[in-house]
Amino acid sequence: MKIISTVKLKSLLNDLQQEFNEHEFIERESLDHLTAEDLAEAELLIAYDSELDQQLLEQMTNLRWVVWYAAGVNNLPLTYMKERGIILTNARGVHKIQISEFIFAYIMQDYKHLNDYHDLQQSHGYQTKIRTAELYAQTICFIGTGEIAENAARIAQAFGMKTIGINTDGREVEHFNETVSLNYRREAFKKADIVVNVLPETDATINLLVKEDFQAMGEKALFINVGRGTVVEEAVLIEVLKNKIIRKAALDVFYQEPLDAASPLYKLDNIIMTPHITGLSRRYNERATNIFKENLKIGIDNSKDFINLVDYTKGY
Amino acid sequence: MKIISTVKLKSLLNDLQQEFNEHEFIERESLDHLTAEDLAEAELLIAYDSELDQQLLEQMTNLRWVVWYAAGVNNLPLTYMKERGIILTNARGVHKIQISEFIFAYIMQDYKHLNDYHDLQQSHGYQTKIRTAELYAQTICFIGTGEIAENAARIAQAFGMKTIGINTDGREVEHFNETVSLNYRREAFKKADIVVNVLPETDATINLLVKEDFQAMGEKALFINVGRGTVVEEAVLIEVLKNKIIRKAALDVFYQEPLDAASPLYKLDNIIMTPHITGLSRRYNERATNIFKENLKIGIDNSKDFINLVDYTKGY
Repeated sequence: MKIISTVKLKSLLNDLQQEFNEHEFIERESLDHLTAEDLAEAELLIAYDSELDQQLLEQMTNLRWVVWYAAGVNNLPLTYMKERGIILTNARGVHKIQISEFIFAYIMQDYKHLNDYHDLQQSHGYQTKIRTAELYAQTICFIGTGEIAENAARIAQAFGMKTIGINTDGREVEHFNETVSLNYRREAFKKADIVVNVLPETDATINLLVKEDFQAMGEKALFINVGRGTVVEEAVLIEVLKNKIIRKAALDVFYQEPLDAASPLYKLDNIIMTPHITGLSRRYNERATNIFKENLKIGIDNSKDFINLVDYTKGY
Repeated sequence: MKIISTVKLKSLLNDLQQEFNEHEFIERESLDHLTAEDLAEAELLIAYDSELDQQLLEQMTNLRWVVWYAAGVNNLPLTYMKERGIILTNARGVHKIQISEFIFAYIMQDYKHLNDYHDLQQSHGYQTKIRTAELYAQTICFIGTGEIAENAARIAQAFGMKTIGINTDGREVEHFNETVSLNYRREAFKKADIVVNVLPETDATINLLVKEDFQAMGEKALFINVGRGTVVEEAVLIEVLKNKIIRKAALDVFYQEPLDAASPLYKLDNIIMTPHITGLSRRYNERATNIFKENLKIGIDNSKDFINLVDYTKGY
């Protein structure tokens, strides 16, 4: 097969070429840089590029498989791809390690007062009344029980935390001491010291969390959002933080991104913010490539057994 | 038995009195506040007070058991206590949760650039080139394989880290992928991304780490010290940090404590410092009391089965 990548795979592409020398691997800078020959002959396209649209795909008459190096496929021309019978696999799961780790970074920053100790060091101070809290025996509740939440829950249990998972039907998931359905989420919020949103953006998750949810979490709670910012309206978030309805928030995602420098969120003293970076990893392409390699070994004729095969009827 | 506590146990003392109502529990503000009756009648003393010396013990003619609410017993009159046949138990193990957690707080602060992200937030910045590192697949090496190291190694493995333990004879310990004897420690340092000292202060550990040890760790290394500051001379530490022989240090303990505000350590930009606080916990007394309760249940007549029974010949 002729395989074109518009993802900058660098040495990973050489590794692929060596391991799968029955195929021809070609790297192009972007989809705009595909040659007429590329378009005509490519059977497989590795991409992570918002310009992959129906018009382009129509020119790629031999294309059989799109290897999408992101998790979300909602901007791809799914209906057309389904009609054409193009196989689509994505990079679901490549975020779980880095996002899980950052959840604990936020918790440590908050529970261990790392900023306060940093300030103490800057002032050459030694004596202090700063007292830290322990993760041990705390209850952490994840909204969503997918791969990221499950991995983070496993680590939380290693810290001696109690884990609660919230999903649509309350089904049991490994590494959660308890699971609750979305309808009963406020019962879980009441028990939790930390609530972590890891939900993706769908029609069902936009504006899901309202003031009553934060009232259930209460003034003890640290709310962490590494899912999508649209899960709660910014005005609601500002109100609950300003009025200390919850204790603190750690946010990597925002309703409108990039966050405006004039956002009132910056004025709050009980907030930790990062600029949508928890999913980044120096090993991102390596991990996505490992999934692709497994699928290449399975072989395109057995694509129904592929890892991360997108189901066009579900849209993910 | 008449049991005197000079540790402020508050409600924990009431709990003890209720659970063990065959004994009489009395709290005194300090050893100076013991009455003549206390001295004459007490059979059991709960203390954490540097003034517990031979002179005082000689007055406590009925004393059979000292429950020491700290780990280190090296300042107690051990020879005299042994002669008298006084049972001594300590609070070994009560630090493992909080110190383990703080090890990961330092790692998160360093690997996830939490200070840089905090500064970015203060400047209302959103775009950034700050790239973080992952704990996953890193190698962490503990000098010492006692309870703190073992607990931290267990958590490290949950993060997907490789763990190496260094102890006197290289004996295997749970949660360490590999163990190495102290003589071969530099081989372990070469493999490690993070080296954590958790050793207590003994004749054998004072000035144990010299320049060659840090050269073995190399410029990739984060060195964390939550054991005792005397494991490395301050001048050596300053040299290896100033010359970037190692990448960074996170220190909770210092050669001279409290650390002088004029210490050259404050001038270094590759150092994280906290004022000997990683062992503190709001649950310290609760944990020490739980050990004591277990021993009370075992009963003084079976003291050879006690948890944390100090062996006078070993001194710990």
